[in-house]
Amino acid sequence: MGFQFHCQKHCSQTQARVGQFETPHGVVETPRFMPVGTLANVKTVTPQHLQATGAQMVLANTYHLHLQPGEDIVARAGGLHRFMGWSGPILTDSGGFQVFSLSEMRSITDEGVTFRSPRDGQMINLTPEKSIQIQNALGADVIMAFDECPPYPVSRDEVEQATDRTYQWLSRCVAAHQRSDQALFGIVQGGTYLDLRQQAARSLLEFDLPGYAVGGVSVGEPPELIEQIVQATTPLLPQDKPRYLMGVGTYREMAQAIAAGIDLFDCVIPTRLARHGSALVKGDRWNLKNARFREDFSPLDPDCPCYTCQNFSRAYLHHLIHARELLAFTLLSIHNITELIRFTQRIRAAILADRFTTEFKAWLKQ
Amino acid sequence: MGFQFHCQKHCSQTQARVGQFETPHGVVETPRFMPVGTLANVKTVTPQHLQATGAQMVLANTYHLHLQPGEDIVARAGGLHRFMGWSGPILTDSGGFQVFSLSEMRSITDEGVTFRSPRDGQMINLTPEKSIQIQNALGADVIMAFDECPPYPVSRDEVEQATDRTYQWLSRCVAAHQRSDQALFGIVQGGTYLDLRQQAARSLLEFDLPGYAVGGVSVGEPPELIEQIVQATTPLLPQDKPRYLMGVGTYREMAQAIAAGIDLFDCVIPTRLARHGSALVKGDRWNLKNARFREDFSPLDPDCPCYTCQNFSRAYLHHLIHARELLAFTLLSIHNITELIRFTQRIRAAILADRFTTEFKAWLKQ
Repeated sequence: MGFQFHCQKHCSQTQARVGQFETPHGVVETPRFMPVGTLANVKTVTPQHLQATGAQMVLANTYHLHLQPGEDIVARAGGLHRFMGWSGPILTDSGGFQVFSLSEMRSITDEGVTFRSPRDGQMINLTPEKSIQIQNALGADVIMAFDECPPYPVSRDEVEQATDRTYQWLSRCVAAHQRSDQALFGIVQGGTYLDLRQQAARSLLEFDLPGYAVGGVSVGEPPELIEQIVQATTPLLPQDKPRYLMGVGTYREMAQAIAAGIDLFDCVIPTRLARHGSALVKGDRWNLKNARFREDFSPLDPDCPCYTCQNFSRAYLHHLIHARELLAFTLLSIHNITELIRFTQRIRAAILADRFTTEFKAWLKQ
Repeated sequence: MGFQFHCQKHCSQTQARVGQFETPHGVVETPRFMPVGTLANVKTVTPQHLQATGAQMVLANTYHLHLQPGEDIVARAGGLHRFMGWSGPILTDSGGFQVFSLSEMRSITDEGVTFRSPRDGQMINLTPEKSIQIQNALGADVIMAFDECPPYPVSRDEVEQATDRTYQWLSRCVAAHQRSDQALFGIVQGGTYLDLRQQAARSLLEFDLPGYAVGGVSVGEPPELIEQIVQATTPLLPQDKPRYLMGVGTYREMAQAIAAGIDLFDCVIPTRLARHGSALVKGDRWNLKNARFREDFSPLDPDCPCYTCQNFSRAYLHHLIHARELLAFTLLSIHNITELIRFTQRIRAAILADRFTTEFKAWLKQ
C-alpha cells in the first residue's frame, strides 16, 4: 500500500517544507503536531472532540499497550483504530524509549532487552522482532523501529555502542515486518554526539524506508542540544520522505525543527499541562488555578476556534479546577491540543505564502 | 414568562401522563429523567456529549455553587446557562437537602439554618430569602423552595415541626422571588408519615405555583416507603402542573412514580456508577472491571444509540478502567445518562400508544 509523501512547497530561506503524507487511514498534512494517546486514548478527550482539534495522526504506545490490555486483545478487537474509535491515521512507537526510561532494566544485549513489568513485576523480554510483532498486531498506519535510547549524559563509548545496536536492530525490524499496510520508520540515534548522529543518519539510508525519525531527544538533553542535533541530522535524511522529530512539542523547538526540515511532532505536553490546570495560550503557559482568572469571563484565547474557547470562559475553567471537577482536564486538553496543532498549521500556511521566516521570526531566533 | 404545562395524554389504567413543560430555554418532554450537574457541570461530560444523550433539563446545586464559585461569579458570567455552556433548561435545587445532609449543622430556627462550610470552615447562614436570592442570581429556569429535610428515621413530632416550617418557609420563598423568567416549585415534605405528606400536599395548593415536587425521598428511606409516599401524595397535586420526584433515578422507582403521576426525576446515580466503573444496561448494573468483559467486543447495549455504544466495546471500557484512564468515566457517564433518559422516553412512547402497563409490567409489579 502506498505511503506517498508529496512535497507541495519548499521554503525559499530555510529547509522547511509543506507536504502531504498518505496513509491507509487518511492524509496527514505536514508540518503537523500529533497528539499522544498512550494507552489507546488521548487522556480525557473523546475521539469526537479530538477530531475537532484538527488532529490527523495520533500516537499510541507499544510498551504500554503490550502491558495493558496486550496486543492480542487489540488485534481481536479489530485493531487499534477500531478498538479506540479513531478512524484517522495512527502511529505506534516501538517501546524502546519507554523500556529505557520507565522500566527497571535487567539486561541489554545484542539480542534485546529484559525488564521488569511495572504492572505486575513479571520479567518481559523485548527484541526488535517482538516489537514489530506487537506493532503488526496493534495495526497502526506507521510503526517505529526498535531502538536503544541511552540516557543523558552518558559516555561517547556507550552512545556509540547503542547507536550501532540500533542500526543492527533496524535490519532485524525490516526483516520481521509483515504488513504492507503499515509503514516502518527508522530512527536516527546518536545521543548528543553530532558526528555519531550524522553517521547514524547516513547508515539509515541503506534502507529504503517510507519515513525517518530523529529520536531520543527527550531523554534529558537540554533544548539547545536538540536544535543542534536536528540541524545536523535532518538535512541528511531523504527529501522525498516524511521526517518525524520524536517527543518534541514546544513552540520554539517545533518552529526551529520545521526550519531544519522536520514534518511531524508528538508530545504529551498538551494533555499533561491540562491535568496540571495549565493552558497554552499564544506561546505562554497559564495556570488557570491562579486567582487572576476568578472573574475573567473571556475565553482562553478569543482567536481560538476550539470547543473550549467557543463555549467557556477562563472563570469557568478556574471554577472547575477549584471544584476539582475532572471536566477541567478535558476542556484544557482540547484547547492545548488544538493550540499546538494550530501552531503547526499556521507555520504550514506561512510556508505556502512564503512568509515563514518573517511571521515566525521570534521563534526562529537563536 | 409562560411556564405552560400541556398534558398531551393520560394513561387509561394509571395516573401516568405525557406532557410538555415550556421553559424560557426550551421544552421538556415528560416523563423525563434529568441529569445532575452539581457544580455547574455534569461530571466528566461536555455539554456537547450531554446534549446527544437526550438531556433536556439539567440540574445544578445551589448549596455547592454558593460555596464554589459563589452566585456572584455565576451572575457576572451571564448566569448559569452561559457559565456552564448549557443552552437548554436548568433547574436549581434550594440547597435545603445538602445543608441537612452534608453540613455540620449549627442551628435550625424558624428564621433559617446556620452551618459550617465544609469548604473553608466559615459559618454560613441560609434562609428561605437567601436561597431564593442565590437562585435568582444563578438564573436557572426552575428554582426550588427552601425546605427542611429531616433525616430518616426520626420522630413524628420532629417531622411535623419540619413540615410546618417548610410550609412557613414557602410563603417567604414566594415573597422573596424576584424573577418572572424563573418558575418557583413548591416541595411536599412530611417524611414517611403519609398523613403528614398529604396534609403538606394540600397546604401547598394554597399557593398557585408553576410546579410541585415530592421531596426528601433520598434521606435514607427504604424504597418501598418511597412508593407509598409517591402514591399517597401525587394524586393530591394539581393535574395541570408538572410534578417532580426529587433524587430518584432507578428503573423501578421511576416506573412506579410515573404510574402515580410523576413527570420529572433527577439522580446522581448514572454519573456516580460511571466513576465506579459500572454501567446501567437493560435494567441491570454491570461492573466493567470484571474479567468477563476483557474480551467482550460487543457494545454495552447493541440497541443503545449513545456515543459510547456506537463507538466502543465492553473490552475497551474494561481496558480503560484497568489502565486507570479517566476517559472511562466519561464514556460510562454518557451511556448511563442516555440509558435513564431512554427509559423515561420509552415509557413516554408507551403511554402515548396506550401500552404502558403491558410493556412495563415487570417494573410496575408490587
